[in-house]
Amino acid sequence: MSNVIDFGRMSCPLPLGERDRVLLGHGSGGKMSAELIQNTFLPAWDNPVLSALEDQATLDLSSWVRQNGNQTPRLAFTTDSFVVQPLFFPGGDIGKLAVHGTVNDLAVGGAIPQFLSAAFILEEGLLIDDLRRIVASMRAACADAGIMLVTGDTKVVNRGKGDQIFITTSGIGWVPAGRTLSIHHARPGDRILISGTIGDHGVTIMSQREGIEFETVLKSDCAPLNGLTEAMLEACPQIRCMRDPTRGGVSSSLNELATASKVGIKLQESRLPIRREVRGACEMLGLDPLYVANEGKLIAVVPAEATDKVLDAMRRHPYGKDAAEIGTVVADHPDMVVLKSVIGGERVVTMLAGEQLPRIC
Amino acid sequence: MSNVIDFGRMSCPLPLGERDRVLLGHGSGGKMSAELIQNTFLPAWDNPVLSALEDQATLDLSSWVRQNGNQTPRLAFTTDSFVVQPLFFPGGDIGKLAVHGTVNDLAVGGAIPQFLSAAFILEEGLLIDDLRRIVASMRAACADAGIMLVTGDTKVVNRGKGDQIFITTSGIGWVPAGRTLSIHHARPGDRILISGTIGDHGVTIMSQREGIEFETVLKSDCAPLNGLTEAMLEACPQIRCMRDPTRGGVSSSLNELATASKVGIKLQESRLPIRREVRGACEMLGLDPLYVANEGKLIAVVPAEATDKVLDAMRRHPYGKDAAEIGTVVADHPDMVVLKSVIGGERVVTMLAGEQLPRIC
Repeated sequence: MSNVIDFGRMSCPLPLGERDRVLLGHGSGGKMSAELIQNTFLPAWDNPVLSALEDQATLDLSSWVRQNGNQTPRLAFTTDSFVVQPLFFPGGDIGKLAVHGTVNDLAVGGAIPQFLSAAFILEEGLLIDDLRRIVASMRAACADAGIMLVTGDTKVVNRGKGDQIFITTSGIGWVPAGRTLSIHHARPGDRILISGTIGDHGVTIMSQREGIEFETVLKSDCAPLNGLTEAMLEACPQIRCMRDPTRGGVSSSLNELATASKVGIKLQESRLPIRREVRGACEMLGLDPLYVANEGKLIAVVPAEATDKVLDAMRRHPYGKDAAEIGTVVADHPDMVVLKSVIGGERVVTMLAGEQLPRIC
Repeated sequence: MSNVIDFGRMSCPLPLGERDRVLLGHGSGGKMSAELIQNTFLPAWDNPVLSALEDQATLDLSSWVRQNGNQTPRLAFTTDSFVVQPLFFPGGDIGKLAVHGTVNDLAVGGAIPQFLSAAFILEEGLLIDDLRRIVASMRAACADAGIMLVTGDTKVVNRGKGDQIFITTSGIGWVPAGRTLSIHHARPGDRILISGTIGDHGVTIMSQREGIEFETVLKSDCAPLNGLTEAMLEACPQIRCMRDPTRGGVSSSLNELATASKVGIKLQESRLPIRREVRGACEMLGLDPLYVANEGKLIAVVPAEATDKVLDAMRRHPYGKDAAEIGTVVADHPDMVVLKSVIGGERVVTMLAGEQLPRIC
């Protein structure tokens, strides 16, 4: 008897055409689950921690502790579920998004991403080939970000009780000593920087759904930001705070920041980097780019005197080449984000009230 | 302006009767998401790490390092998705299951559970009251297990694209120095112990679905096992391995163990603790109790000479009072689990081939 199960041929014959789809039995915890793990997940992530197939991954911190002058490590820990539709879109797919989304939540806290978990909820009938494509994309995304997938889970729900695939990733990172970035730390006088153009991800997804075509190919900005954040923190260890403006967009991230730090924020509309296609699509669809999700962008709050140094560091990095200073932290109107428009007027930018683009990530 | 959003009354009036259900907007990342977090999740888990509302939880390990004689900590990390139906059942609900399932995956590895994340995928239309009940149950389950929920996420999918609620939890625990439990460590001569009656959870769920009633109330065994594992490891630090036989049941756990350790396993059917109601229901439904899921039981492989000591420690613990020795690790028939039946015959117990009870956890 062998651990490599020959599912679908000998042990469990299936009608032709059904072989290449996820079945309820793949979530049983028995032979078919073992087969799915052996043939689909393990080949993508061949590392000794995952391959041990224990119920939990055991992680040795001693090399990290040595590298950091024997200081006790602080851990960063985060989780996100991904339910985006369509599963595949220009610039990425649900798998890449699930890896980089969690990497970015660690990175914007000043943490160095180390370990990832992935839990899959599959709908019966999902094409195994689609699952393989997603897993391959996650593998590449892990390599890109330098994070190791160490533990996972798979459940299967009946047809019509899910939507092909949902992925939940959790991540662990180390926070080097002395780093205390926090949304509570913005102070009047600080500058607001953005790492690049806004709205690319949300408009890409929306265009796919609505069948809108552009002259040029608009792509999701989905990318891992941990290299960029390290370069920024090297240039200025005193960065107050970073956020990745995903769901709810730039407006929601800045409103959360204004509330947490009890400050006001003044934005300059003329300085917001927005692609022409994104601006056009937003006008056509009635969307405000400030509310549209980004998946490879960050907002940073930096002391005024460090602005140029941080901007320089950002622009030298591939994921920060379009970085811009877009606003200022002020003592006036605490809790409020105010936009100075191109034509000179001012308007309050509130948090997203209802739902603009469901299932964007 | 205030961070406490008055959803459904002022900012976003809704038709009566729709107020008390999850809407797509609750997954927007904007005001309605903030409201759901403020009113539903934060009141249940009032701890400074979670309440900071950063994108990631930062965890300080220094007190743990001090307690452990300044040794570098080893971390255990695990994840599981929970998709059980029905959401509420005798003895538990999806929330309790999601907390204790992850606690147990840490505990059976010899880890001391510390931090938990929870990611919710909600179907539009879920009753907010059901969500509150589930969150309250998770809160109680966290307190029971002594684990702290430190980070979370919520997504909402359209009606018909999910099934009320799916929960993915991930857990971090410390592994004290010297503990190296592993499914690769079973040796011929070792004894197989089980912490109590088998099949209670699976048969409870199945009975709920099929509308079967018992004379006595049959309940899921859903429970946190970290207290029990600590008592057992105190009695015998040389325990080879522990597993919680959830999906796939005792047979799948033991088959995985036999394969990983390259040993055979001999089970005594007469020694398997099974409730009368569970045995009856299994006969009626055509189920084999060895394949039915448990959610508050563990299997331990212990050196023969430590059997009585470990069994004593188990029986003194509330979650181990029905503990029993059920079999032996043998050098014969490696990779194979063989059951000696009550009437004297022998049969090979293979891994679960297809799906017996979908969505049991």
